[in-house]
Amino acid sequence: MEQKQYQRKIYLEDKPRAEARDEILAAFLQTSEMEMIPAVDALGRVTAEPIFAHVSMPHYHASAMDGIAVIAESTYQAHEQNPQYLKIGEQFCFVDTGNAIPTPFNAVIMIEHVHIVDEETIEIIEPATPWQHIRPIGEDIVQEEMLFPQGHLLRPADLGVLLAAQQLTVPVVKKPVVTIIPTGNELVEAHSELAPGKIIEFNGTVFSGFVKDWGGEPRLHSIVKDEPEKIKEVLLEAAETSDIIVINAGSSAGRKDFTVHIIAEIGEVFTHGVAARPGKPVILGKINGKIVVGVPGYPVSAYLALEWFVQPLICKYLGIPVPKRQTVMVKLGRRIVSSMGAEDFIRMNIGYVNGQFVANPL
Amino acid sequence: MEQKQYQRKIYLEDKPRAEARDEILAAFLQTSEMEMIPAVDALGRVTAEPIFAHVSMPHYHASAMDGIAVIAESTYQAHEQNPQYLKIGEQFCFVDTGNAIPTPFNAVIMIEHVHIVDEETIEIIEPATPWQHIRPIGEDIVQEEMLFPQGHLLRPADLGVLLAAQQLTVPVVKKPVVTIIPTGNELVEAHSELAPGKIIEFNGTVFSGFVKDWGGEPRLHSIVKDEPEKIKEVLLEAAETSDIIVINAGSSAGRKDFTVHIIAEIGEVFTHGVAARPGKPVILGKINGKIVVGVPGYPVSAYLALEWFVQPLICKYLGIPVPKRQTVMVKLGRRIVSSMGAEDFIRMNIGYVNGQFVANPL
Repeated sequence: MEQKQYQRKIYLEDKPRAEARDEILAAFLQTSEMEMIPAVDALGRVTAEPIFAHVSMPHYHASAMDGIAVIAESTYQAHEQNPQYLKIGEQFCFVDTGNAIPTPFNAVIMIEHVHIVDEETIEIIEPATPWQHIRPIGEDIVQEEMLFPQGHLLRPADLGVLLAAQQLTVPVVKKPVVTIIPTGNELVEAHSELAPGKIIEFNGTVFSGFVKDWGGEPRLHSIVKDEPEKIKEVLLEAAETSDIIVINAGSSAGRKDFTVHIIAEIGEVFTHGVAARPGKPVILGKINGKIVVGVPGYPVSAYLALEWFVQPLICKYLGIPVPKRQTVMVKLGRRIVSSMGAEDFIRMNIGYVNGQFVANPL
Repeated sequence: MEQKQYQRKIYLEDKPRAEARDEILAAFLQTSEMEMIPAVDALGRVTAEPIFAHVSMPHYHASAMDGIAVIAESTYQAHEQNPQYLKIGEQFCFVDTGNAIPTPFNAVIMIEHVHIVDEETIEIIEPATPWQHIRPIGEDIVQEEMLFPQGHLLRPADLGVLLAAQQLTVPVVKKPVVTIIPTGNELVEAHSELAPGKIIEFNGTVFSGFVKDWGGEPRLHSIVKDEPEKIKEVLLEAAETSDIIVINAGSSAGRKDFTVHIIAEIGEVFTHGVAARPGKPVILGKINGKIVVGVPGYPVSAYLALEWFVQPLICKYLGIPVPKRQTVMVKLGRRIVSSMGAEDFIRMNIGYVNGQFVANPL
């Protein structure tokens, strides 16, 4: 009758979802750790500190055109009626786009506007203004300029900026470790021989996929039997090694649903049940300073609860806003009745009919 | 004067972008290769064949409620005025949600509707209908049912379906190999000591990031000097080992832009220049059956050209539609003039003002 001792009366509540989420976000006090990684491997990672340019770009005065570099002041007299002749070496030199402008030159004339007289001489009929067609040092990026603030999600083009500014190693936020604990006597590994009453554990793999997509590092624990002492031990261990803990099933109020009692015993329960369907029987609590989220076994409820409560925790750790789902305004194809004070999440089939989106519940 | 021989007259065209893309898509005849990988590692991969269920889900008649399993036909007389008493074992047994329904039972009565008389006897006052509160074999997935068609991008929940149906190894499309070749005498590796006129090669890393995001496998070649023979050799080698080749810079029509001539010599040039700005000076061709895309060195042009021409090739190889960019209708903050027959791509700052989006060019 070991289970008996966990039959204390904690009933499912109907807490508003946003309130429940804000409570755990406030209680989630993990300090985000930082790690240094090569810029070329930083795709999809989040900056842990502001990042500054190590060098300017360009890091020298560069020609922006194919043409000749000249001293602008020496061309001021050039005119159609007064062509000017320049000697190679001291008065001009040929440059291609991207070439450095040698001293003492300070302007570029496009090759199309240059008449080549002989191998040493060119003719121009228009003056150049100082710095014309030159990309001065730091035109794109100035040394010591901030490239990215803290909390910036690095996209492909950002890696180019890092390399161009010679920031080859970057401080990024470590991915928060999310330990996922599947529980249940009925669960078996996917490769097992199946027997009636045995259910393949697949939620853990799905959760891992979501956690990965959201920027966390999932650690999938092996299946844990419905034994309170064993569950307690695994939860305490996970609280040592993870930033966030997800425990699957046992989150409701049935006779084997003692997870909430275990968390209350070794930690603190903030919420047991939110006013949303599906996804209602969720547990939000804390064990040794680590947030634990108990989600129902029914897959759709579980994935919703994960998105409501685990994604915001991961985003808080990473220091980025929670990405918004795309929304669309629809006309309902048939009436849907919802209880007062509860949110309903209903899967819909959406079609575009006569200029408007029409949705029908699946 | 080795360069001289490549100065044949191929001028930049103004081919419509869609026409240029359709031509290379039609010429891209790579057969997509398949590989077998564990389902748990298949996140973000694309199915190479239709995938069928190995087992049903549930794979046994399962109770959908906590309660008792009964023989429905033996409960038909139960009524408030005529309570019926059932003996444990032969007439009923206790079941929890998910438990197998033992023979000969064929219905479940919720525990809330059962009155427990003693340890062996229960009382019911309502009949059960056959199969009530039972999830029959295959309710969610029937064995041999198609789970996913060919060309399905696997998301987190899909991995759950694969495991539940015991499809532990799945055929996915191999990621197409995209070799990226940076060329230019001015280019140096990012860790190099910088000298005037030397430019850090960073486009290759950016391209690799995009290719990865789009589902391809990038292979970044080391920097190749502007030497036609060397470029020719590298292109021929890439044509052996890749599905798609991207060559960076040298795609315009300047005096060092001989890439187009090399491709014409060892392969075929479909397009040199599209009617779009930036991104105009692009080369689209084929070498030994492999599509080669030559993109300009200027980063913004390069990334656009990559999105226009390389992303569709990757999607074609994977057998998935090209993802659409999100679009928004805006009111222009100031007039923008565009040439006839050319597309202009302009970066905008978008704000939401008085109920409409207003865009101003950067």
